[in-house]
This record gives sequence, structure tokens and C-alpha cells, in this order.
Amino acid sequence: MKKIAIIGAGNIGKAAAKALLESPDFELCGFVRREEKAVSGFEKIPVGKSVFDFPEKPDGALVCFPSRLVEPVEKELLEAGIYTADCFDIHGELSAMRKRLNFSAEKGNVSCVIGAGWDPGLDSAIRTLMFSAFPENEIYTNFGPGMSMGHSAAAKSIGGIADAVSITLPLGKGKHARKIYTVLKKGADKNEVEHAILSDGYFEHDECSVEFVDSVKPFFNTEHGVLIESNFENQKMGFSMKIDNPTLTGRILVSAMRAAFLQKPGAYFMPEIPPCDFCEKGWQKYL
Amino acid sequence: MKKIAIIGAGNIGKAAAKALLESPDFELCGFVRREEKAVSGFEKIPVGKSVFDFPEKPDGALVCFPSRLVEPVEKELLEAGIYTADCFDIHGELSAMRKRLNFSAEKGNVSCVIGAGWDPGLDSAIRTLMFSAFPENEIYTNFGPGMSMGHSAAAKSIGGIADAVSITLPLGKGKHARKIYTVLKKGADKNEVEHAILSDGYFEHDECSVEFVDSVKPFFNTEHGVLIESNFENQKMGFSMKIDNPTLTGRILVSAMRAAFLQKPGAYFMPEIPPCDFCEKGWQKYL
Repeated sequence: MKKIAIIGAGNIGKAAAKALLESPDFELCGFVRREEKAVSGFEKIPVGKSVFDFPEKPDGALVCFPSRLVEPVEKELLEAGIYTADCFDIHGELSAMRKRLNFSAEKGNVSCVIGAGWDPGLDSAIRTLMFSAFPENEIYTNFGPGMSMGHSAAAKSIGGIADAVSITLPLGKGKHARKIYTVLKKGADKNEVEHAILSDGYFEHDECSVEFVDSVKPFFNTEHGVLIESNFENQKMGFSMKIDNPTLTGRILVSAMRAAFLQKPGAYFMPEIPPCDFCEKGWQKYL
Repeated sequence: MKKIAIIGAGNIGKAAAKALLESPDFELCGFVRREEKAVSGFEKIPVGKSVFDFPEKPDGALVCFPSRLVEPVEKELLEAGIYTADCFDIHGELSAMRKRLNFSAEKGNVSCVIGAGWDPGLDSAIRTLMFSAFPENEIYTNFGPGMSMGHSAAAKSIGGIADAVSITLPLGKGKHARKIYTVLKKGADKNEVEHAILSDGYFEHDECSVEFVDSVKPFFNTEHGVLIESNFENQKMGFSMKIDNPTLTGRILVSAMRAAFLQKPGAYFMPEIPPCDFCEKGWQKYL
């Protein structure tokens, strides 16, 4: 049984841990986090400041840090010969990151699956299948309404912000509005913070509005959804989900980890991997 | 540009020809059919009784015969070093056929993609992705209402039947009823024909009724649809299509042909192939 470490113990890290514990083919060997204290809900799982703190080197690691902190950690793991998967979610930076991590993966003689979350990730594989049948067509991805974990984390990392929840609202044809509920840090300037959000790469392409609140609790809800549409002449295809965002992301990360071990050394996107490689035994019954 | 022959000039063969002519990376080098006359709608395309009748050996061939006639033809092509794809659609026989054709493909040092139609095929890849995320869950595939080309062809091949159209009616949770509109051959016995249909492997597992008619024309309509559902706790996934059946099947066959050239020698199902391998250039924009 392959030993897998989880890097980060936030929402995604915990969801990935749950998914790992449910998988017959993996063993969760530990969490890596800044503070060396047990992860709530996973008190029996070892915790270290680095994967190299564990008694045995893990076979693989799920990198569950916010996207912008993923790459240096993943590079180090790969070069140390540890297979990885991440759910890096900045679409525009995927290709460049893949090139760099491909180099690290080849150096460590291992593989990684990058952008292996809900979107990019599962949705990318679905869109690629739609594109394969009707390449002339425009494919639209409509998210929400629901809380975007990536955008919420991105907002939270902006200076002057104590807490934030970013809600995605579908406008149709792949366009979205975002509402960012924001708790200011003491002494922070509203105008400066609002400007910092609206000009951030995560937000600048959408119609965004910022609302300052005392607590984001009333807006925090992990239910989310998507509708991917491809309409070509009289051919209509649609893929829809209503899901619990961290649960699905955790499941996909574990599937991607499974697939990583089956690929030749290198860095991969989900559409570059045979769907069966993500699966536990038994997929053939759905042929 | 790879030269592709089409074996069979029925609905699927013609749809595959149309899809090939629309593909920038393939050249349609000819039809193979019993009678050496031009295929209506494709008068400029060469016709032969065998792929070996063409001036140059094709690089690949799309086998567009009814399922039960596919294997011997495909075996011969593979062993002669010609890549193939087919839309063989008898789910229960896929694995055994794959084993045999895998042997032929390795012998000819080429690849084939089998069961590369709508279902099995595209739907299989979608179901495999759903299974990868939520393997505990039951996945239901609900077809129709619409005409099943495979079932219509299977009924037509039964003795005593001059023409037939089989309509698939969804009953929910993956159950279906089928109505088979049947034109008898002169002198054929209604009871015997009805029994032959209902005990055929294509029909015996579903709730079927046979209606004898003078012409199937009023019932012939290539519009069809599917809804694939996976519901796990609060996680719901659905894939739906409303499509023109031969058009989609032709497109998928051409995609599978493209993918065949990228695989190591052997026989493959669609879920065993990276989605990007089915694509023309440009899939990365949907990452």
C-alpha cells in the first residue's frame, strides 16, 4: 500500500485526508503543516514540518496549499523522488508551471498531476472529451451559484483582509459575477483593500463587487455546482454537478495521486491521462 | 496526412466519411463495400471490395459494419498493419473481443480502438470519470427516447425481417423499454419472428414489444439522447446529450482513429486513452 503525505491541513487538506482514508489502495502517513500540532478530526495522524520528518519517506504527496504556494513545495518533493498531485487552479499559469514541474519530475524520476481539482481538473477532462467530438463548437462553463474556495483563499491572502468568502454567480455563456464578502483587518483602508481585490489576477476578469462585513460565517457554504455546455448545430452536450466542493476536490486529488503512479516520469494535466488510470478496481463495469 | 478507408457504406459509414472530410488531419482514401459502385453522396470517393484494392495501402480504417460482422474484418486489417477503430456495441462481448484483437494488433504492430461510438465509447469515458470520483455510487445510463441504430441493425439481420426500427424508451434508473417496429418478409411467420427478436442478445434483457408495420419510415428518426447520472450522498453528477446519432458516432470514430495512431500497439477501449489524444489541435484552450 502506497504511503501518502498531505501537505497543508486546510479545507482541501482535510478533505483529501478523508478521501485517502476511504481509498483501499492508499495509506495516509502524515500531514505536513507549519505548526507541529495534530489536525482537528485527524488526531491519530502524524504531523511534521516537512515530509522528511516522517520515519519513512512517503511514496507520494498531495499538495493542498493555496495555489500560489504550491509550486516550490511540489518542486522539492518531485526532485526528492516523491510522486505528487495538486489542485493548482490558476488557469492562465498552468502551462508554464507544467513545463517547470515536468523538469523537476523527470529529475526525480517520478510523476505529478497538476491542476487536479474540480476545475481545472475533472471539468477539463470533460471539456476535452466534448471538444474531441465537436471541435468547432464553443464550450461554456457556468459555475455556481456557490462559494469559490480558490477565490476565497486568494482574497484572504491579500493584505488588510482578515477573512473573505467569494461567491460565484453564473451569468450564462461562461460569464460570471463574483461577490466578495470581506472582513477588514483592524486599521486597514477599505478603498485600498477593494482596489487590491479588484485588480488581483483571480478577480480582474470578472464583474466583481466587494461587500465589507463583520463575519463571513453567514456566507460560508461548501455546496457548489457547474454546468458545462457544448451546443453544435443540433448536437447538445451538457455536464452538470451539484457537489460539496472540498469533498469532490479531495476525491479528485486522490484519484490523480493514483494516476500519477501509472504515468511515465513527467508532469501531466488530467486530460492527458487515461480516465481508467484515476480509478480504483472495477471501472470496467461501466464500459 | 493519414489516408483512411471506411469499411461499410451504411448510415455509420457515411457519417464517418462526412466526419473524415471535415477533419484537417485525415484524407478519406476510399470506401470498402460489397458492390463496387459509388456511395451516394460521396460519388468522387473510390470504392473497392477490399482495402487492398486501393492503389496505396491505407494507414487506417474505420470499420463501420454491423457489430457482429466487425471482428473478422478488423482482425485482417490489424494483422496487415492497418490501424483501426470500430463502434462495436455489444457491451457484454467487449472484453473478450479486446483480448483477441489485442493479439492481432500486436501482431501487425498497430493499434485499434474498439467500442468507439456513442455508447460504448464516449459515454464509457464519461462514466469512468464519474466512477473515479465516486466509486461507491451506482451510475445510471438512461437512453432515449430515440431510435437505436445498433438494435435496429440487429433486428434487421434476423431471418424473416425485411426492415426494422427499434425505439429505446427510458424507464429511469438505467432501465429501458424497447419498441421494435418490424416489416415482415413475404411468407414469414409473425410468431416465429417475434420470438426470434425477443430472445436475441440485443433485446432479451429489456422490456420489449414488437409491432408489425407496413413501413418503418414514420418511425425512422436519427435524433437521440442520453442522461448519465451519478448521485452520491449530496454529490450529483449528470451528463446529457441530445444528438444526431450517426453524426456523433461518425465524429467519435474519427477521434478514435486519431487516438489509435498515438497509442502503443494493442487494442484499447476509450476510457483507456487520454482524452487529449482524441482531439485535433487546440484542446488546451479548455484546460
